[in-house]
Amino acid sequence: METDEQQIRHLMDEWRRRTAENDLEGILALMTDDAVFLTPGNPPMTKQGFADLFQGFAGKARVETEQEVKEIHVSGDIAYAWTYISVVMTALDSGSKMERAGHALTVFRKSPSGAWLLARDANLLAAS
Amino acid sequence: METDEQQIRHLMDEWRRRTAENDLEGILALMTDDAVFLTPGNPPMTKQGFADLFQGFAGKARVETEQEVKEIHVSGDIAYAWTYISVVMTALDSGSKMERAGHALTVFRKSPSGAWLLARDANLLAAS
Repeated sequence: METDEQQIRHLMDEWRRRTAENDLEGILALMTDDAVFLTPGNPPMTKQGFADLFQGFAGKARVETEQEVKEIHVSGDIAYAWTYISVVMTALDSGSKMERAGHALTVFRKSPSGAWLLARDANLLAAS
Repeated sequence: METDEQQIRHLMDEWRRRTAENDLEGILALMTDDAVFLTPGNPPMTKQGFADLFQGFAGKARVETEQEVKEIHVSGDIAYAWTYISVVMTALDSGSKMERAGHALTVFRKSPSGAWLLARDANLLAAS
């Protein structure tokens, strides 16, 4: 039986794996329906906005993500994680690379079924 | 008796008021000793780093902050808040203004004494 923290680490691993595999439906299953993504200089992004953005990249780039977990704290049905994320996107046609790195503060919620889901994400990634 | 959410709203009001009054000790009393502030393109800032940065501005600028609470969610001894913050800093000598605005995702922890304190803050403010 995994602890809550282990389940959240597992969710983050799955998120990266499904991203690398272009599995949009699989990623959407890891977030709440009311998920919100906050990034610098942009309006808040909804689950639908995430899906639209993802589909814009799908099949055009290879996405490799590394994520260092600084901290996970669980209390009841919510948890937060502080992580440091490095992303390399490689265009499949030209091979050109775009690198981003930075910290993220993420809130997870435990669903009534017992599964942890990403609910809020503040992503401070900048060009590196 | 204030609810947890009311106490957190009260903390945010006090934070803005003490900021406007240059009350650094008063602000430091509203955060945990291990507080971390995440901003785009910068390394994580500690409580000491916050104090150093604040003292660099103290007496040189008037800081006016507006904060719109989008959401507060409490579970046990942690809570998170999503807010939209607008800051105007006016230099006391030249009168020149610097404006910043953006979203923030903030985590609060309830201390053993029962007081809510700011623990983690991801601040996405950009020049506006």
